[in-house]
Amino acid sequence: TRTVTKNAGGRVFASYHVYKGKAALSMEPCMPTFTKVESGNFIMDRRGSIMLTFAPAVGERKYDWTRKQLFALSATEIGSLISLGPRDSCEFFHDPGMLSSTAGQVRKSLAIKAHTDGNGYFFSLNVVNKPQNTNDYLSVPFTTGEFSVMKTACSFALPSLLGWDRVTNPNLGVGSVFQPKKIDREALSLEWER
Amino acid sequence: TRTVTKNAGGRVFASYHVYKGKAALSMEPCMPTFTKVESGNFIMDRRGSIMLTFAPAVGERKYDWTRKQLFALSATEIGSLISLGPRDSCEFFHDPGMLSSTAGQVRKSLAIKAHTDGNGYFFSLNVVNKPQNTNDYLSVPFTTGEFSVMKTACSFALPSLLGWDRVTNPNLGVGSVFQPKKIDREALSLEWER
Amino acid sequence: TRTVTKNAGGRVFASYHVYKGKAALSMEPCMPTFTKVESGNFIMDRRGSIMLTFAPAVGERKYDWTRKQLFALSATEIGSLISLGPRDSCEFFHDPGMLSSTAGQVRKSLAIKAHTDGNGYFFSLNVVNKPQNTNDYLSVPFTTGEFSVMKTACSFALPSLLGWDRVTNPNLGVGSVFQPKKIDREALSLEWER
Amino acid sequence: TRTVTKNAGGRVFASYHVYKGKAALSMEPCMPTFTKVESGNFIMDRRGSIMLTFAPAVGERKYDWTRKQLFALSATEIGSLISLGPRDSCEFFHDPGMLSSTAGQVRKSLAIKAHTDGNGYFFSLNVVNKPQNTNDYLSVPFTTGEFSVMKTACSFALPSLLGWDRVTNPNLGVGSVFQPKKIDREALSLEWER
Repeated sequence: TRTVTKNAGGRVFASYHVYKGKAALSMEPCMPTFTKVESGNFIMDRRGSIMLTFAPAVGERKYDWTRKQLFALSATEIGSLISLGPRDSCEFFHDPGMLSSTAGQVRKSLAIKAHTDGNGYFFSLNVVNKPQNTNDYLSVPFTTGEFSVMKTACSFALPSLLGWDRVTNPNLGVGSVFQPKKIDREALSLEWER
Repeated sequence: TRTVTKNAGGRVFASYHVYKGKAALSMEPCMPTFTKVESGNFIMDRRGSIMLTFAPAVGERKYDWTRKQLFALSATEIGSLISLGPRDSCEFFHDPGMLSSTAGQVRKSLAIKAHTDGNGYFFSLNVVNKPQNTNDYLSVPFTTGEFSVMKTACSFALPSLLGWDRVTNPNLGVGSVFQPKKIDREALSLEWER
Repeated sequence: TRTVTKNAGGRVFASYHVYKGKAALSMEPCMPTFTKVESGNFIMDRRGSIMLTFAPAVGERKYDWTRKQLFALSATEIGSLISLGPRDSCEFFHDPGMLSSTAGQVRKSLAIKAHTDGNGYFFSLNVVNKPQNTNDYLSVPFTTGEFSVMKTACSFALPSLLGWDRVTNPNLGVGSVFQPKKIDREALSLEWER
Repeated sequence: TRTVTKNAGGRVFASYHVYKGKAALSMEPCMPTFTKVESGNFIMDRRGSIMLTFAPAVGERKYDWTRKQLFALSATEIGSLISLGPRDSCEFFHDPGMLSSTAGQVRKSLAIKAHTDGNGYFFSLNVVNKPQNTNDYLSVPFTTGEFSVMKTACSFALPSLLGWDRVTNPNLGVGSVFQPKKIDREALSLEWER
């Protein structure tokens, strides 16, 4: 059977999910945005990212996505991640309020730590929110296979996040690239203003 | 000479085959499927896979494809496979009837084992079918070169199986992606309901 | 300045050349061919290859391309090549007349040997033509950088040679893929009938 | 929110920037150019490159791009760069006036040196301009993550710089590939005539 659905500029949503006992982690590319300049050309004005979304488990194979925590991996952070050796670890710190009056109020840290036997990694997000007096910790173990999927998918997406796929193939167009929805946009801005 | 054949939405079939003395192994990507949601966007509803098809040899360079056995590699299994070192092995277990009344009746296991000299791998599929009282074992040795082709091809296909190529390039469309034929679809479902 | 040339199905030719003191080596992908089957779909009928063309030097930076020798790397041979370690070597043998009445008359062997210091490889082609009583030997040293270009370009091309880029993106079409010119076609057939 | 801007052949500009204390480094692909030949086909006449642009810091997070220095990485130099091990180094020499009457007047050397701890690299450009009696030295340290981004982006771009993406997908067209602007073109010519 065949489905011929017209895709008139429709955006496609596709996340890679890893579901584990205490939390789930979903990841998805957020494309860069472009500005039209004179002469009909385009300049990238904001690099893309890989948005990680963590949700706590609230039962067997049930996750509470209303309590999700976001962490947007920048190109350089993706570079660190995809070059991790089987015993390596790395940690990234984000302050969503950086350079604003809310600097220091919310602190996020993402640690990616190799299992001691070299067979996989832990992705652990810690979010300390001073105004709300909360401290969330969400940790998802990745097998070697799951980490390999993430590495391959992130390596694939990286040139697009830098806009280089549009440089080598202008036919791709920038008009069909949607900006994140208003709410995601804000989350992203918070992350990025640093 | 030139062939200008109009490809009006036609699907393309292309398998990578490895023919050996006791059996042959064919592999081919099965694309994900998408559902149209409000506002004209699309959400991936079923990840793609790499379908492996084994057939026993029945003579010199002759294979009996009517006695084929299927094994659909998931994204995570592909991740394991493409990160195998030259002396590594892995094994995957599928129960086509999982979570249904036929659970446990058919058991498939795929073992990928490095040759002891590090020059290649064995792909060995064992299918135990209790209702039919059959036990099929099909094994195909891969040279280093053949395994490298498989790794490169699977790494290439993986982002498509996750739908990420459609995220970075919405022009690709989802309407031109066909669902597997009815019969393959069923086979797939059996594999995936677990 | 901008060139807006309509590319109405025009084929693009682009070789990667390495010019050295005694010989030059040019390489270029030869795309697979497809057959239209019922229902408007396509099946790949012949895998693509990477065509290597060697030419002897006949002066400083001058090469005699009329004395060229061809060697078409199959997908599996490309797999071997891209998985070579810095001290590894491999050798491929082709008999253009294999399975025909001219079997054994022309023998080609391509050796890829790591430099003893691990900094590069020799690509050496030996063609023994019994009917013509000739024995040609053409050898081109590759630096690490040149070999890395070849590896990256061949890894990029490999999924296309298997037809998998058309499976994941049917929009690519097969009608815009040209068959090699008559003469190359014949050379290819000779190489492949084995 | 969504921006539907028509991209009627518009060129896309997207650089990957690394900003450090003493200098900044920007990199961007320069696509190859093609010539139309009889029968409507195209031949690549000039390989693409990755253009590196260095600018000195003139204050905190301020860079003087009017004092930029360019270095166009060839395909083979990119090959060397992407195959560097964590403790390796390499150096490239360009003479923009090579093979012309201005040979030897300007000498550029780019050194890529691993940090002694294996955690990153220095990109250091030295430009000696005899007629102007200047000697510029610009150095930008790359973290492991930044180098990994560069490697991934350059590996992605390399097949395009060789024109192989147009060989495997003639739909891409060459008419939508713009030649570098006049001034960049000249800079490139100077670099390449050697």
